[in-house]
This record gives sequence, C-alpha cells and structure tokens, in this order.
Amino acid sequence: MESIINQSHPYVPRDLNLPDFIPGVLSQSTIVGVYGSCSLFVVSLIWIVSGRFPKISKIDRLLMCWWAFTGLTHIILEGYFAFSPQFYTEKTACYLAEVCEFSRKEYSKGDSRYAGRDAGIVTVEGITAVLEGPASLLTVYAIAKKTSYRYILQIAISLGHLYGTAVYFITSYLEGDNFAASTYYYYAYYVFANSFWVWIPTLIVIRSWKKICAAFQTESKDEKSKTC
Amino acid sequence: MESIINQSHPYVPRDLNLPDFIPGVLSQSTIVGVYGSCSLFVVSLIWIVSGRFPKISKIDRLLMCWWAFTGLTHIILEGYFAFSPQFYTEKTACYLAEVCEFSRKEYSKGDSRYAGRDAGIVTVEGITAVLEGPASLLTVYAIAKKTSYRYILQIAISLGHLYGTAVYFITSYLEGDNFAASTYYYYAYYVFANSFWVWIPTLIVIRSWKKICAAFQTESKDEKSKTC
Repeated sequence: MESIINQSHPYVPRDLNLPDFIPGVLSQSTIVGVYGSCSLFVVSLIWIVSGRFPKISKIDRLLMCWWAFTGLTHIILEGYFAFSPQFYTEKTACYLAEVCEFSRKEYSKGDSRYAGRDAGIVTVEGITAVLEGPASLLTVYAIAKKTSYRYILQIAISLGHLYGTAVYFITSYLEGDNFAASTYYYYAYYVFANSFWVWIPTLIVIRSWKKICAAFQTESKDEKSKTC
Repeated sequence: MESIINQSHPYVPRDLNLPDFIPGVLSQSTIVGVYGSCSLFVVSLIWIVSGRFPKISKIDRLLMCWWAFTGLTHIILEGYFAFSPQFYTEKTACYLAEVCEFSRKEYSKGDSRYAGRDAGIVTVEGITAVLEGPASLLTVYAIAKKTSYRYILQIAISLGHLYGTAVYFITSYLEGDNFAASTYYYYAYYVFANSFWVWIPTLIVIRSWKKICAAFQTESKDEKSKTC
C-alpha cells in the first residue's frame, strides 16, 4: 500500500493519501451561514404552513419541521457525498454543489474518514440519503394527514438514525478515534453536530412507541380482551 | 503497515495478516451438525410449548420459533465473536466456546473480514449481540403474552437485521468483494446463510406494519375520525 505523507490537506491522520486534493475556498462561516439560513427557511416555512392545517398539535408541527430539515439534509448533503466519489477534487459550477463540496471538506476536519471515503461511512451515508431522506419527507406528509402509519414510519427512520450513528461512532472508536484535525473540530463537528441525530431520534422513538402501544390497548379493549 | 504473506491460514485475501493463527480442528460437518441440532432442539421446544398457550395462531408460533432461534444465535455465536478479540488463536476448554470459535473460523472462509476483525463487522455484530439478541428473546415472551408492543418490537429488531445486513453487504462491495476462499464458500456462507436475515425480517416488517396500521384505523374509528 502506498503511504505518501501528503501535506497539502488539513486532515488527521497526516498520512491520509489524497493526492489530488484541492483546498476549500469557502470559509467555515460561509458554509455554516448558508446551511443555517437554508435550514431556518425550511423550518419557518413548515411551521407557518402546518399552522394552517386543522388539529395539528404544536409537537407534531415541530416534528414536521424536524423531518423536513433532516430529510433535505440527507438527500442534498449526504446524497451528494455518497454519490460524488471525487468530491474533494472537484471544481463545480453549481453553487449548491459547491456548498455541499466545501461543507464535506470542512466537516472532514472533524472526521477525515469522509475525505478518505471510508467504506463504512459511504455505506451509512448512502443508506441515509437513499432510504431515510425520502422517508423523512414522506413523514411530513404522514403527520399532516394523520395517516395510520405516521408513528411507525417515525420509529423506522429514527431507529435508522440511531443504528447509523452507532455504526459511525463505534467504528471510529475501534479504529483508534484519531480522525479529527483538532480538539475543537472533534467536539464541534464530530460530537456536537452528530448529537442531534442521537437525542432527537431517541425522543421520537419513545413518543411513537407509546402511541403505538396505546393504539393496541384501544384495539384490545374493543375486542373485550384483557391480554394486551 | 506490515504486509506478511501468511500461508498458514485458509482465507482470502492471501495477504491477510494473522500471525498467531491456529487452524480449526472441528470439521465443517461437525460445526454445522452441532449448530443445526441445537437450533432444531430450540425450535421444536418453542413449537411444542407455544402450542399449549391459548389462542396463538400458527404464524405467531412460527415467529416465536424464529425469534428464539435468532436471539440465541445473536447472543451466543455473534456475542462470542464480538467480545472475544483473539478468537482465532484461542485454545478453549469449554465445548460451547470451542464450537463458537470453530464456527467463526469456518465462516471466515466465506468472509475473511471476520478473521481479520474488520471494524464494521465487529460493530454490526456487537450491536446485534448486545441489543438485538436479548430483544429477540423478549419478543418470544411478547408474542406469547400478546403484549401491546409485540409488533413494534418485531419491526424494530427486523429493521436492525436489515440495516445490519445492508452495512455488511455494501461495505464488502465497496471494498472489492474479495473475501471468500472459493465460489462455494461465497455462495454457501456469505450469500445463502445471510439471506435468512434479509427475507425473514422483510416479511416480518410487512406483516407487523399492516397490524400497526390496522390498530390505528380501529383507534381512529373509535374517535369517529376519518383522517387515518
């Protein structure tokens, strides 16, 4: 295996081989600013529109915001990463692709396995982008229309989030947990940014689980059975 | 990285470095025989005992057999693998540990990432052994007692199976799909043996999903609402 010390990239481990690496030209504040503004726009839009639907609780409206935000993040950011193998060398014309590209270059400072295209990371991101992304957007509709599958869909995707983050953190631990360019990037990107996809799905699983059990208890009462 | 051609193991790729490897002494037929007999015993026991419970359908009894079988496989075989790092060099006194050890040595002919302790494999097997194993055994109880969480529990574990096998197959594909000692082992171990954890969970997810939707439709009718 080739083991060239490539000093042209900012990532750790320093011997990560990225021969055609082109540094990002957008700053951290620009990337975070664009991502933050777009997310705020989506969340505000869903919050306002969902307010016009009859009988949707505030918790459900908040959940619709979450599902729209996470679904678009999966499809655009993670989809771009999973299916653009040479992302770190690319020069793009489209502004959205440029932001995606630079966000991954920036995020790789917290976890260089993204720049190195680790098979485990590409797999988890691919599953997330292809299955969980569209399913998250479907959940926005499912909550709005109060469909019978709204809770089970939320549990299914949230368990996907939890499985994905478990694979993400445990593989890193087993491989030495040395993929961040500094302590700041480790905590800001690797720990803090990912933590949202741990605690929010956990809360959603608990809530949806209780709703499903309650539905079976109702069904059970209907059947005059005490076995539930 | 050290790259010794170690001819003392039977796995592919041939340059996989297993310096302290001790060959298995139990034959394929012994391992398959012990695993098959134990599984048959568990399945028969659950089938007979579940027949004594009132009002449990044949499908539910079959599912109880599956959950007992898969739960014990996760806890014993996969738990042993995930938490015995030096399994391929070990000489054990306990017969059960010996069978576990040799079954992994044997299975590695179909996928040498087990012998090489690939981080992705250890992670998936660890999650499966610690969370899905005990949860599978809980499902046997949940079905027998017709608890309100029996379907959601089955979906949760089955989605875990599907996520795990997806990570398992996709990472192998991305890394070149060259981990089997021969075409026979590739199809018999890697494809055929794992396929049970793809098609059975898929069927269980479909069935449980329908049951949950039906429960919400009942609840919805109760509330005189037509939105479900």
